Amino acid sequence: LRISFNSPNFIVCIIFYVFLFFLFLGVWPLPQTLISSTERFHLSPQAFYFGYGRQSAAQQGCSVLDAAFKRYFALIFPDYTSDGTLPFNVDKQFTVEVSVDHNDCDGYPNESSSERYNLSVFSGRASLKAVTVWGALRGLESFSQLVYQDDFGSYFVNKTDIKDFPRFQFRGILLDTSRHYLPVQAILKTLDAMAYSKFNVFHWHIVDDPSFPYQSRTFPDLSSKGAFHPMTHIYTQSDVRRVISHARMRGIRVLPEFDSPGHTKSWGKGQPDLLTPCYKGGIPSGTFGPINPALPSTYHFMATLFKEVSVVFPDSYIHLGGDEVDFSCWKSNPYVRAFMQKMGFGSDFTKLEAFYMENIVNITSALNKTSIVWQDVFDYHERIPKDTVLHIWKGTPASYYAELSRMTKAGMRVVLAAPWYINHISYGQDWHNYYTVQPLNFSGTEEQKKLVIGGEVCMWGEYVDATNLTPRLWPRASAAAERLWSDEKQTSNVDMAFPRLQDFRCKLVRRGIQAEPLYVGHCKQEYQGI
Amino acid sequence: LRISFNSPNFIVCIIFYVFLFFLFLGVWPLPQTLISSTERFHLSPQAFYFGYGRQSAAQQGCSVLDAAFKRYFALIFPDYTSDGTLPFNVDKQFTVEVSVDHNDCDGYPNESSSERYNLSVFSGRASLKAVTVWGALRGLESFSQLVYQDDFGSYFVNKTDIKDFPRFQFRGILLDTSRHYLPVQAILKTLDAMAYSKFNVFHWHIVDDPSFPYQSRTFPDLSSKGAFHPMTHIYTQSDVRRVISHARMRGIRVLPEFDSPGHTKSWGKGQPDLLTPCYKGGIPSGTFGPINPALPSTYHFMATLFKEVSVVFPDSYIHLGGDEVDFSCWKSNPYVRAFMQKMGFGSDFTKLEAFYMENIVNITSALNKTSIVWQDVFDYHERIPKDTVLHIWKGTPASYYAELSRMTKAGMRVVLAAPWYINHISYGQDWHNYYTVQPLNFSGTEEQKKLVIGGEVCMWGEYVDATNLTPRLWPRASAAAERLWSDEKQTSNVDMAFPRLQDFRCKLVRRGIQAEPLYVGHCKQEYQGI
Repeated sequence: LRISFNSPNFIVCIIFYVFLFFLFLGVWPLPQTLISSTERFHLSPQAFYFGYGRQSAAQQGCSVLDAAFKRYFALIFPDYTSDGTLPFNVDKQFTVEVSVDHNDCDGYPNESSSERYNLSVFSGRASLKAVTVWGALRGLESFSQLVYQDDFGSYFVNKTDIKDFPRFQFRGILLDTSRHYLPVQAILKTLDAMAYSKFNVFHWHIVDDPSFPYQSRTFPDLSSKGAFHPMTHIYTQSDVRRVISHARMRGIRVLPEFDSPGHTKSWGKGQPDLLTPCYKGGIPSGTFGPINPALPSTYHFMATLFKEVSVVFPDSYIHLGGDEVDFSCWKSNPYVRAFMQKMGFGSDFTKLEAFYMENIVNITSALNKTSIVWQDVFDYHERIPKDTVLHIWKGTPASYYAELSRMTKAGMRVVLAAPWYINHISYGQDWHNYYTVQPLNFSGTEEQKKLVIGGEVCMWGEYVDATNLTPRLWPRASAAAERLWSDEKQTSNVDMAFPRLQDFRCKLVRRGIQAEPLYVGHCKQEYQGI
Repeated sequence: LRISFNSPNFIVCIIFYVFLFFLFLGVWPLPQTLISSTERFHLSPQAFYFGYGRQSAAQQGCSVLDAAFKRYFALIFPDYTSDGTLPFNVDKQFTVEVSVDHNDCDGYPNESSSERYNLSVFSGRASLKAVTVWGALRGLESFSQLVYQDDFGSYFVNKTDIKDFPRFQFRGILLDTSRHYLPVQAILKTLDAMAYSKFNVFHWHIVDDPSFPYQSRTFPDLSSKGAFHPMTHIYTQSDVRRVISHARMRGIRVLPEFDSPGHTKSWGKGQPDLLTPCYKGGIPSGTFGPINPALPSTYHFMATLFKEVSVVFPDSYIHLGGDEVDFSCWKSNPYVRAFMQKMGFGSDFTKLEAFYMENIVNITSALNKTSIVWQDVFDYHERIPKDTVLHIWKGTPASYYAELSRMTKAGMRVVLAAPWYINHISYGQDWHNYYTVQPLNFSGTEEQKKLVIGGEVCMWGEYVDATNLTPRLWPRASAAAERLWSDEKQTSNVDMAFPRLQDFRCKLVRRGIQAEPLYVGHCKQEYQGI
């Protein structure tokens, strides 16, 4: 086959290379710009190194990158076990040289951390440059996905140039550890997989009605009485530290949620007088409703709890919940009603709810934390502090677009979760739904659109525990990951995405993530961990 | 609390015991009769034995029961590792004495094997009596489910009397190893879990359009060219033997399906001239349709293949498929049309299909095998041999009831799969749908109803491989298992079934089966195998 530059063959050839590029040189989520050539370089695990660039602010001893180098070496060469012999062919050496502008090795990723990186792969070396170590982690992930094996098992990487940065700053996954307890190991595994899709926020919906697994230093009864089991179904302080540390090493923030005043049934077991006693026929019925907003002791308790939480969780955000508050129990309680009168709320219980949330937001503000709350708080109470972040969870596109417009018009920052309730399963390729979301397709100014700081995939726990979490989450969440990281115009077509996502899913399986198949087909290495 | 036998307390007490019975003494699927007392006996792994009754036709050396004794000991006492010391307290000894009428230890379970058993648990011993070793296996499973641990970890079993037998003789699960390859380990694990729910037929839909993983002795090209990969994505002869042997040890038949003439794309890769060349504009288009029914070579090939299959698979049934035949390619092919004319079929392609299926059924009959075919074969061709078993897969209850009436009126035996297409997932507690099926609720005589020999749960593989098979199958398939084993009147209420199925699901998790949760809650031992 003779190829000339002005023949139809040339076009076929280009199409073929584009095809090759998508199949074998895929990076998921798609980088902002990626230029790739067919020139490829052989990699040998015996002569492959990660190192720090001379100008890098971080050098050997940087915990985040030192650990990442080990991790990515094993991910790139999964079959390799050193036999102790020295590399026999020194001129085949390949070094990935990592340079960062800031030495933030010992800190935590935060809401303004740059994740930008530039990656260039040449003969014998690659250069990875980033502002922060968190950006360098993203670049290492991309590099690891560029490496492939030929049919003989040899490793290759093509000449490539990537300039990349995330579209949205906040790219989260919510796990619910109250409706079912998730062993720490399941959370750590999820953090691993999150890093592979460049998610950067683990929203830990740690407690709720069914159970209170967080073991509080200040209020140990909350878990000893409110967890499914006081010893086996709890997160100790050291469990929490382990999760936060594992997340930090992967550039992932841990955002704890202590949802109140609703969704708190389990809190009542270990904290008497916290929940509102419901009344029936003028006497207490023995059941309890949301947290009691009429008692001063409530705010004292919440301040003490959040003081602990703000120390245990280093992130600058705390999620305060505030969703789905049922007013019927408050209405039934004569003391709550008397409090309403005293405060001049009349019979408008949304005012009582707003009063409660304002107090809680003030508590977290005093602790120098940014509050994030579910949309209900805004819906019922538009005058909330401007630095509060709002979290949209309700409805169809029509309704969440309207909500995005209203919230951003009010100058509020927003995280969008509504289209990514991934616990809602259905038959077939429902990842299309997660992929085709257009988060900024609402009516509003450019300034308004900048207030959408990101999105979140929510895995609520009604029907999910460690037995089915991973195959339900992956690769469906990865579809959302590309929406949140990549340029929307370059990634608008599900048919183009399909072979790339299939390939990425096989990479997840190869890395030991029990990610389910998208459709009929196979991976070179199938899941074996049964 | 004083309890007298004629007070309301007595009733409360009874209700409480019934509650206890359902929660802690549950056997899933529910035995036909189970009488249980609150009198309980302590079991110690150091003084617990399975043994053969004196009158038993099978004695030590019976492979099926010897192995089952070891297996069930480990299932009953999962934490026990012998430290080599002798039991210190001999009077706490407990023996389960197993007696069977027939020594069928070296045979295979078949369509007429009795699975009936009686199990009585007394102080210090239990007596398990069955006609066959397969019935004894069902009794061992029930016994293992009767054992429970108290809060201190001690093992107990209550005084119990069970008389049990299956409602339907054929209780199957279909796995599809063509749309995705399932590693042998995943199949073996499924067989383990099948035994826990008393399923007794593994319907192995081994090949289909996407891939041909069965490595044939006679036609090795079928898998070397038709499998996803000729070495890693195949079932060798020894793999197949391993599956059959593992199934036999659990009283499970292996029913192989070689579906034709449709669903055979992958066959064409390794067997030239087998598939029909499709024509477009008077010339072959390069694509292929169903198996070519117009060539004598086709029948020669099929006879040779089925001769091998009938030896490799010991079961007396072979599934011949026959579903979803697309006539458009046959119609396009001038040689097929000429054959139609010669045979006097006119332009009725259902006659051609019937002609093909008749030939294949005759081939399997000559091999002394019973054919089972999908309902399409009956729908298009009512005159098929009376000993063929029909398999209903289509439609809503209204339509499968009509089909059940028609088929049984024609005197045909039927297996019902339509309501149990368990690959069709949806959000929430969809096990209700599988549980509330009434397989005999069609209009027909008692004689007709007897022709419904059972039902089958189908896990088609479009979206399923080893990553998600187990949590999709269990415990949803267990809901169908109770429908197929137990008395319908005793098991008609989903609310009564819910706590029992939740308890059974925790037993599955305890046994290492990654069975997903039914709803909010927890198991004492959560799944840890991540």
